[in-house]
Amino acid sequence: MIELIPAIPSLHDAVLAERLQQRIDQKTKPLGALGRLETLMLRLGLILGSETPRLSEPQMMVFAGDHGLTAQGVSAYPSDVTWQMVENFIAGGAAVSVLARQHGMALTVIDAGVNHEFTPRPGLQIAKIAAGTADSLHGPAMSADQCATAIAAGKTLLRQRPGNAVLLGEMGIGNSSAAALLLARLAGQPIALCTGRGTGLNDAQLDHKTQVLARVLDRHHGASEPLAALAAMGGFEIAMMVGSILQAALERRVIVVDGFIASSAVLVAARLQPAVLERCVFSHRSDEPGHRLMLQALQADPLLDLGLRLGEGSGAALAWPLLESACRVLGEMASFASAGVSEAGSS
Amino acid sequence: MIELIPAIPSLHDAVLAERLQQRIDQKTKPLGALGRLETLMLRLGLILGSETPRLSEPQMMVFAGDHGLTAQGVSAYPSDVTWQMVENFIAGGAAVSVLARQHGMALTVIDAGVNHEFTPRPGLQIAKIAAGTADSLHGPAMSADQCATAIAAGKTLLRQRPGNAVLLGEMGIGNSSAAALLLARLAGQPIALCTGRGTGLNDAQLDHKTQVLARVLDRHHGASEPLAALAAMGGFEIAMMVGSILQAALERRVIVVDGFIASSAVLVAARLQPAVLERCVFSHRSDEPGHRLMLQALQADPLLDLGLRLGEGSGAALAWPLLESACRVLGEMASFASAGVSEAGSS
Repeated sequence: MIELIPAIPSLHDAVLAERLQQRIDQKTKPLGALGRLETLMLRLGLILGSETPRLSEPQMMVFAGDHGLTAQGVSAYPSDVTWQMVENFIAGGAAVSVLARQHGMALTVIDAGVNHEFTPRPGLQIAKIAAGTADSLHGPAMSADQCATAIAAGKTLLRQRPGNAVLLGEMGIGNSSAAALLLARLAGQPIALCTGRGTGLNDAQLDHKTQVLARVLDRHHGASEPLAALAAMGGFEIAMMVGSILQAALERRVIVVDGFIASSAVLVAARLQPAVLERCVFSHRSDEPGHRLMLQALQADPLLDLGLRLGEGSGAALAWPLLESACRVLGEMASFASAGVSEAGSS
Repeated sequence: MIELIPAIPSLHDAVLAERLQQRIDQKTKPLGALGRLETLMLRLGLILGSETPRLSEPQMMVFAGDHGLTAQGVSAYPSDVTWQMVENFIAGGAAVSVLARQHGMALTVIDAGVNHEFTPRPGLQIAKIAAGTADSLHGPAMSADQCATAIAAGKTLLRQRPGNAVLLGEMGIGNSSAAALLLARLAGQPIALCTGRGTGLNDAQLDHKTQVLARVLDRHHGASEPLAALAAMGGFEIAMMVGSILQAALERRVIVVDGFIASSAVLVAARLQPAVLERCVFSHRSDEPGHRLMLQALQADPLLDLGLRLGEGSGAALAWPLLESACRVLGEMASFASAGVSEAGSS
């Protein structure tokens, strides 16, 4: 596994951090007056190793996969919606398509394991591991080999993309179950707190989903290590995202994390290599209740809190202009000295 | 006053609201999955009177004025910072300048009453009522005539700007005091809860500010009506913003509200004409503690909560891409029918 999982070093750099903080503090504004945007400036500067970081060629990568566990009735939508939405992404009609267009970012959809044969097209990367995972109620969702292949593919796909920032999205009917299972196992949270309505279950369906997931956890009680849990209960799109996250972290790209499912991939990656988190910007707090626990487990404080629960990378795309703003303010805003503005207490 | 304060009708339109909601619900996403962005779509559609609203030529208007009350030591910065920051806005070095540039919006700085003679330049509107307000501890900040002139000027300035959306910002050393006073008087809140550190007071300075403001409120105990309170304890930039808000509401422009001081102008306008609020999008919750109370008084739920406390319109500018996103999603995102995607429960 030493080759599969790269060692991610810490970005700790006291000199650069100090320089960035000084630069921020000398801007023509009261100390700290840009709040969380200032924290973001610091983080982007440290990731990109610059006092004046610039974001270039942001890549929206949407990983899609199907889930055998949907046979247990854990989702409000039929599995066919996975491939139908992949078509919608490529055709430009999905929320993430619209938002990627708005912000001028390249959108690549990755077939990580959809139960459908797609016609090859620009914007679609076919990297199918299998036509959906197996039903994790009856066995592992994927084999250890499949899991490693997915991670390796995620690394390769990321390496092939240009730019210094990546936004990670996903599509997969049933994948809020996989994310809940990973959260429960890797963060030690009760499954009832990790399970949500996903795309729109009613109360009875939510109860059913929770009971199914409890049985899945029980079935895989031995899968406690990150990769073992990922193979037993995850999804191909999640495993491939883990690979892309690790590779992006290794290359010091900015990783913009979307919602509950994308965060579950970050959770796996961070349990393998904690310094991954130093490269992450969490875009939003999802309305899916488990996301709050997920963010706590990752000690993350996301930028937006808009009650989103769509996935696809839509929250990451919505938050993107704030990252651009942070870089521009750091690079373009005047200092007290350069603008000839008096400082506090100088009256 | 019947001419000064236009009657603002309600935008209530059950047919359009229903059409908008149907349009939102037919998009290829689970019901409600775009959370607060969906509420925003509805609001923008109702303001602009369209199922597919389009924002055009957004105008960032930054109103600047000085405050006689600064003689009482209520601010961490000297009053000269007001004119110095106006120069910084125009030169392009302030936070709001950088953000307006990022989002391609026209920035106009309005001298509503700065204690400085500016050289006329593009991007600067000189509409000075006086060289700063009088000290409200000893008398009204402005006369009723000055207040009416400022409101009328705000209306005219707004009318002259193109586009269907306006972002309102401000600059004025001492104006967090004026906003706190208006909040205390018009929302009936204790002054201690309305008063904050503004640009950065320490504990002792905050105590002093609170005591001064309590005395100002006492001095003007009879000024309970919105316009009377505005004249007695407000500022020229706030009064001019009130005029622009009323005019923008009359013209059904989208009003993007910044932080504590901009919200105080909305509070005055809404007390005069409550339907103004139907045209407002509140951009963020400021770190200035009184803003929470202000937002409650206005029944507003802002988009961002980033601990900002800069003013200038910076929070409004940061939130702007979310408004653009709402319009684009409403206009460009596919429906289940158009994309051939199965709906919930159709498995």
